[in-house]
Amino acid sequence: MASNSFGTLFRFTTWGESHGPAIGVVIDGCPSLIPLSEDDIQPWLDKRKPGQSRFMSLRREGDKVRILSGVFEGKTTGAPISLMIENTDTRSKDYDEVKEKFRPGHADYAWFTKYGIRDYRGGGRASARETACRVAAGAVARKILGDGISIRGAVVQIGPNKVDRLRWDWDEAGNNPLFCPDAQMVSEWTAYLDSIRESGSSVGAIVEIVASGVPAGLGEPVYDKLDSDLARAIMSINAVKGVEIGAGFGAAELTGEQNADEMRSGPSFLSNNAGGILGGVSTGQDIVIRFAVKPTPSILKPLRTLSTDGQETEISTKGRHDPCVGIRAVPVGEAMVACVLADHFLRKRTS
Amino acid sequence: MASNSFGTLFRFTTWGESHGPAIGVVIDGCPSLIPLSEDDIQPWLDKRKPGQSRFMSLRREGDKVRILSGVFEGKTTGAPISLMIENTDTRSKDYDEVKEKFRPGHADYAWFTKYGIRDYRGGGRASARETACRVAAGAVARKILGDGISIRGAVVQIGPNKVDRLRWDWDEAGNNPLFCPDAQMVSEWTAYLDSIRESGSSVGAIVEIVASGVPAGLGEPVYDKLDSDLARAIMSINAVKGVEIGAGFGAAELTGEQNADEMRSGPSFLSNNAGGILGGVSTGQDIVIRFAVKPTPSILKPLRTLSTDGQETEISTKGRHDPCVGIRAVPVGEAMVACVLADHFLRKRTS
Amino acid sequence: MASNSFGTLFRFTTWGESHGPAIGVVIDGCPSLIPLSEDDIQPWLDKRKPGQSRFMSLRREGDKVRILSGVFEGKTTGAPISLMIENTDTRSKDYDEVKEKFRPGHADYAWFTKYGIRDYRGGGRASARETACRVAAGAVARKILGDGISIRGAVVQIGPNKVDRLRWDWDEAGNNPLFCPDAQMVSEWTAYLDSIRESGSSVGAIVEIVASGVPAGLGEPVYDKLDSDLARAIMSINAVKGVEIGAGFGAAELTGEQNADEMRSGPSFLSNNAGGILGGVSTGQDIVIRFAVKPTPSILKPLRTLSTDGQETEISTKGRHDPCVGIRAVPVGEAMVACVLADHFLRKRTS
Amino acid sequence: MASNSFGTLFRFTTWGESHGPAIGVVIDGCPSLIPLSEDDIQPWLDKRKPGQSRFMSLRREGDKVRILSGVFEGKTTGAPISLMIENTDTRSKDYDEVKEKFRPGHADYAWFTKYGIRDYRGGGRASARETACRVAAGAVARKILGDGISIRGAVVQIGPNKVDRLRWDWDEAGNNPLFCPDAQMVSEWTAYLDSIRESGSSVGAIVEIVASGVPAGLGEPVYDKLDSDLARAIMSINAVKGVEIGAGFGAAELTGEQNADEMRSGPSFLSNNAGGILGGVSTGQDIVIRFAVKPTPSILKPLRTLSTDGQETEISTKGRHDPCVGIRAVPVGEAMVACVLADHFLRKRTS
Repeated sequence: MASNSFGTLFRFTTWGESHGPAIGVVIDGCPSLIPLSEDDIQPWLDKRKPGQSRFMSLRREGDKVRILSGVFEGKTTGAPISLMIENTDTRSKDYDEVKEKFRPGHADYAWFTKYGIRDYRGGGRASARETACRVAAGAVARKILGDGISIRGAVVQIGPNKVDRLRWDWDEAGNNPLFCPDAQMVSEWTAYLDSIRESGSSVGAIVEIVASGVPAGLGEPVYDKLDSDLARAIMSINAVKGVEIGAGFGAAELTGEQNADEMRSGPSFLSNNAGGILGGVSTGQDIVIRFAVKPTPSILKPLRTLSTDGQETEISTKGRHDPCVGIRAVPVGEAMVACVLADHFLRKRTS
Repeated sequence: MASNSFGTLFRFTTWGESHGPAIGVVIDGCPSLIPLSEDDIQPWLDKRKPGQSRFMSLRREGDKVRILSGVFEGKTTGAPISLMIENTDTRSKDYDEVKEKFRPGHADYAWFTKYGIRDYRGGGRASARETACRVAAGAVARKILGDGISIRGAVVQIGPNKVDRLRWDWDEAGNNPLFCPDAQMVSEWTAYLDSIRESGSSVGAIVEIVASGVPAGLGEPVYDKLDSDLARAIMSINAVKGVEIGAGFGAAELTGEQNADEMRSGPSFLSNNAGGILGGVSTGQDIVIRFAVKPTPSILKPLRTLSTDGQETEISTKGRHDPCVGIRAVPVGEAMVACVLADHFLRKRTS
Repeated sequence: MASNSFGTLFRFTTWGESHGPAIGVVIDGCPSLIPLSEDDIQPWLDKRKPGQSRFMSLRREGDKVRILSGVFEGKTTGAPISLMIENTDTRSKDYDEVKEKFRPGHADYAWFTKYGIRDYRGGGRASARETACRVAAGAVARKILGDGISIRGAVVQIGPNKVDRLRWDWDEAGNNPLFCPDAQMVSEWTAYLDSIRESGSSVGAIVEIVASGVPAGLGEPVYDKLDSDLARAIMSINAVKGVEIGAGFGAAELTGEQNADEMRSGPSFLSNNAGGILGGVSTGQDIVIRFAVKPTPSILKPLRTLSTDGQETEISTKGRHDPCVGIRAVPVGEAMVACVLADHFLRKRTS
Repeated sequence: MASNSFGTLFRFTTWGESHGPAIGVVIDGCPSLIPLSEDDIQPWLDKRKPGQSRFMSLRREGDKVRILSGVFEGKTTGAPISLMIENTDTRSKDYDEVKEKFRPGHADYAWFTKYGIRDYRGGGRASARETACRVAAGAVARKILGDGISIRGAVVQIGPNKVDRLRWDWDEAGNNPLFCPDAQMVSEWTAYLDSIRESGSSVGAIVEIVASGVPAGLGEPVYDKLDSDLARAIMSINAVKGVEIGAGFGAAELTGEQNADEMRSGPSFLSNNAGGILGGVSTGQDIVIRFAVKPTPSILKPLRTLSTDGQETEISTKGRHDPCVGIRAVPVGEAMVACVLADHFLRKRTS
């Protein structure tokens, strides 16, 4: 059934395959009179774009976004905003071997079981290329939220190597291609990723997104909780295997008094183990989300698998792939958070 | 806006407050001709019911479910199934202090900001009592899924104390009031919870749910992924702060070849780091979900907070509360997983 | 699949069968802080209640509504409002013949084909008794809309007998049991209905609903148009076979200049062929909806039909039935219009 | 809020304005493995295309549809199908006067009130050009339904002139540009429309759609009734003011025994006043829908109106417009019926 849309009041629908003529997103529910042009969207796509460092896929995607509808004389009209990005660098020949084999860790086998057909070229619809559409939608969501709300992301762990939170610097996270908020860790990660890449392998990562300036009162009890919608949004990103809010899994080890975010006048809170959300509704504190990204499943090292006709075989993926897809997940995670917040920002007007 | 429903094809809507006359759930989308009676639902409610051990709230909830519609001559008719549970033990006087203060870690402040009013008696709509409705819906979902699919849960960690997975025994998990799958850990946890309770505190926990027998092909790309819907479902449970699938956050430290679930004839998989889901679609392996539950926020120890009129004050909760709400989350987590699977089980027929 | 809910931001879900223990409705999305008690709902139910005149079913339904949730200290809290009406006069023995035969013009055959089972007692879920839940939801919708918006209905035609619009009097429509706005027509309709009833037959009717005071700007292009949602709402009422807005089917015979609602300062319109809606959005004029209700299909006169095992037979319905169900459709139509307007009233805040 | 999608399991989302670079539709929920190419869609677009006779707008739209996603090696993959039609003949200069004035009978005033901005070029998003996307979606819906289900439409009345149903000939309806099923009426309508056009006016029409071969059991009680969804679908088409099923408004004048569709073995029905739907569910009979289309509001004759800054003025529309938009509504109505049936065709699998 229909399943390519996200959101309720602010809803976007994506389409397109990795190696088709184009990908795109239709953004529905954006209020009118918001100034919008390609220049508001393109920088976020550029941030996600592969080929920016040697730790991203070498594929060069022009990723030039074009607004096809919903904007008139520089402002949104309330009509759906259709955005399209043409696929320009689609070397289909790279994927000939993939045609006959299921790649472990990919959607190949599961989707083939479901649909009985699969567009094997570059992962088709399952490709992370789809996330460019999410980033474009997120750019529009940010315009709805306005400048008072900032949504920033950083990589906090690659393989076993974690950043030192005492050295956290948001500006630094924007200055290096690894979205690392810890200046001293950049060179360490760089060397580590070089070794991973040279060994034909890949590695996982943990990403953190922080939304600041979110007013209290966003979110809904009981099934459309803000954290529930955020968990869904984040878990829908390719390769994500876990998501947590505030203290997250660490909360399991806390006692009630350790976990309590006591309140003082302001209102202010003496801690933020809740990650800015209580009972599914924002409290006005920073919203803090962390998620785990598995290692890129396409690796040079040979893996045992099945052919599409059920024979045992091996596969070694020689295409262009990131040693750590978690890095590129940063702008995607930011975008999904922006879209969830924009949806609840509009919902709040109806409570 | 409307936000008290969960699911798409199999959708349930819950209503009711902790201290109102009753709580209930309307289950819509259950196929016809499924044998159903109160006896199919009551045992699951009994499993969740408080007051079963000294580590659960002392509140005695009769929790007798009544079917008000949708069943005729012992079978479902395709019409909505309305279930009601009367609230019988509602000592409203216990909550007088709560009326004037926001309890840290509760929905109180956030919901009051959103709605400008709050039913403070026992948490009102924010009470964990609402989860009885989820458990009832889950019982119907299990009937749709049939006996071939089992959904079982266990507590795997309380505070810093983890079970030994080498001693995992599902039968044991059903035999002790802590849902502990490790027989040797039961006494250790018991002593630990006694000390927590005596100190007027509480502690968090981690729960694991495993669904076996799920056929390959359930779930949808790209935004209604099975894991995405599971994450949403689990995160909507009171006090949950994190959710992960398969290797989860541990995947961040794995390399591509460690994480790969290689395939052999059958098809069989040589590991299950994916937790039974790839590209948002089930693979036929066990679906494995873990989630973190924060410590009960209502504790005897005094906490700094604000009164509803903004004055700094302290609160100490003397009501009936579990030292570890994570324990009672087991049947709730199972139920939410059952509901998500039933929804996608029906969806699969349309692909 | 789930199909017993109506609305988006203001959404209600109904449950219950004609001869089960109760029927009910869960109203989700009502804003908080709206004063609400049973006294706000009961009068509308009383208006719909059968047994009020000899032209309505003789069934005596107590129809006493009870609020089970969502209201605290006399005000809505933002939580779902659960309303229940017990079924008190359910003479199941009346329906024994119906058990074995499909009644022409009823849902019997179609639903049995779909579900393979049917609760034959009084029509079960297909009974017009379900519309009491719509009326209850409509009462809450009216509270959201406030006193500035009035929604009134009247019967404008019974069989071939139409009211004279020059004699239209809204007060009169509230004073007679036929909801007839034309005082002179009341006795004529009464005599006509007596003859229909005595002949063991029934007859159709046309109902008109007018919503006044609706602000301009309610409704959505392109698929959630206000008129589109109204048409859906009205057509979902039992026995309705047609719906029109403004000039409706009469517009087919008009020329462009006859149909044009010219504008003057105010803004004011020189006519209202549009029925208050253009491009799916309200203009501030009265919203005018008309709908046709077929004759009660349950009649004393014998009709040819099939038994549930496929044999040719006859059926003559001896139960308690209205000679003209169109009369009772008036408060139901009003309620559905109120619910659609309340939904779009909340939606407007998000544009 | 988001409002540019239609359908549940089979859902399409349209985008684009009359004078933007393109219009398009994303079709989500089409099952996999259905053969599909542009050749399956283009003929239906050609049928709707303006400029085919002197009674349609002179605008020449190439209306060449392009499939951008969701099809691989000639078959659907289960991924969303993105279709785009470029706007090639967009003479924006024609619409300069419209910029400053609200056109009576158009969305202009209502939408401006709602959004505070309007793309006045050719009606922008409110243009009937959007219906090309519906027709494209309908073409895909027909593929899902298969050859066993036919959906055909005809004009049955233009102004006061009705076809003679005794001369009904579906082949004839496909042979003349007026979709007239009565060969003798074609010349009469032609002369009538010539006179209307010469007088600078326009006229309304009534269209009838018949779906044959629809199996019993499609549709849902109580709020997603098949007729309810059809009414919504049809009423969402530009300029439609009324919709009826089977006997429709005529049912108001029938008695119970006249209206009853008695049943005999087969099952067969002795009449079809129900229009193929009872209790919201199909019976296996032909589904018969009729709808009224108002006269084209853009006419040469001057009409009194307001300027966008509130001044009283007149407007005379000189652009390219059909004297009777009801004619072009035929393929659009067919398409919307096809989409509703495809949605319920998939839903049926889940009951």
